[in-house]
Amino acid sequence: MSEEKELEVAEEKNAEEIVDNQAVEEVEAEEVVELSEVDELKIKLDEMEDKFLRVSAEMANIVQRNRNERELLQRYRSQDLGKQLLPAIDNLERAMATEATDEQSLGLKKGVEMVLESLRFALKEEGIEEIPAKGEVFDPNIHQAVQTIPAGEDVPSDTVVEVLQKGYKLHDRVLRASMVIVAQ
Amino acid sequence: MSEEKELEVAEEKNAEEIVDNQAVEEVEAEEVVELSEVDELKIKLDEMEDKFLRVSAEMANIVQRNRNERELLQRYRSQDLGKQLLPAIDNLERAMATEATDEQSLGLKKGVEMVLESLRFALKEEGIEEIPAKGEVFDPNIHQAVQTIPAGEDVPSDTVVEVLQKGYKLHDRVLRASMVIVAQ
Repeated sequence: MSEEKELEVAEEKNAEEIVDNQAVEEVEAEEVVELSEVDELKIKLDEMEDKFLRVSAEMANIVQRNRNERELLQRYRSQDLGKQLLPAIDNLERAMATEATDEQSLGLKKGVEMVLESLRFALKEEGIEEIPAKGEVFDPNIHQAVQTIPAGEDVPSDTVVEVLQKGYKLHDRVLRASMVIVAQ
Repeated sequence: MSEEKELEVAEEKNAEEIVDNQAVEEVEAEEVVELSEVDELKIKLDEMEDKFLRVSAEMANIVQRNRNERELLQRYRSQDLGKQLLPAIDNLERAMATEATDEQSLGLKKGVEMVLESLRFALKEEGIEEIPAKGEVFDPNIHQAVQTIPAGEDVPSDTVVEVLQKGYKLHDRVLRASMVIVAQ
């Protein structure tokens, strides 16, 4: 091979190498782009799955919370109206305690008694009942002591000896504490 | 250029082309793999986004539905207890209508009147009110005709002339229709 030819071939080789390198670089660049798109998609997919799982868990929480709230609303729905009925029941009981000797009064009291029974029944249906007090151990959560008397043989200490005003509870909630006299 | 040289160059070119083609094919093959992974990821991402959007929309529906349910539960919470109080009110009103001349009866009636007022107030607080009836145009949705009388000059046709038992509604719901006499 002549020197000229050798040079030519060498140049050609060189040029080829440069072209090859460029091609390799292009391919590498493409791969980088392709890889990063895959990675990007994978990241996005992970994020989206994460969002999906979080919103699903949140929904499950909301459903459960709502079920509980509905149950509570249902369970204590008569709290306000029930509470407002208590003075009416007090007054009717007071009326029942008055003396009645003539026919008119006796008739009225009979009517009042029927009403009282129907009110008590209606309240019971809604879960509202009288708080046991007389003879019970004093419990500040359900009894309100307005007077004390000394404990003795018949009246053990910390016992409710008299109820001045009946207390009522709605299931486990106290609507009104019993006003009581306690032995101490 | 000599023929030999031309042939050499041509062969070299050919060889280059073959190599190039191989490279292209390799790149194309790689691209197919890469594209399908990208496509797969894109499909998965679309699906996941779709699931996320659907569960989000479902959650929004649930939240809205629960809000409505809670509002309804709250609005009509006193329906059952209120309904059960109506006969008590009827009876107290009946007691109020009886004759009372002596002191005992007058005292009892005064007590009954107070109770009636407190009951009516308690019901009103919960949205329970008497259905207007006497003098109103007869409406079968809220009035129950138990008797008819002929319409005349003073009593236009289709008018409620007398109420035999008061009706009550809780907001827009009829708890008990008014029992009425209608002119026809």
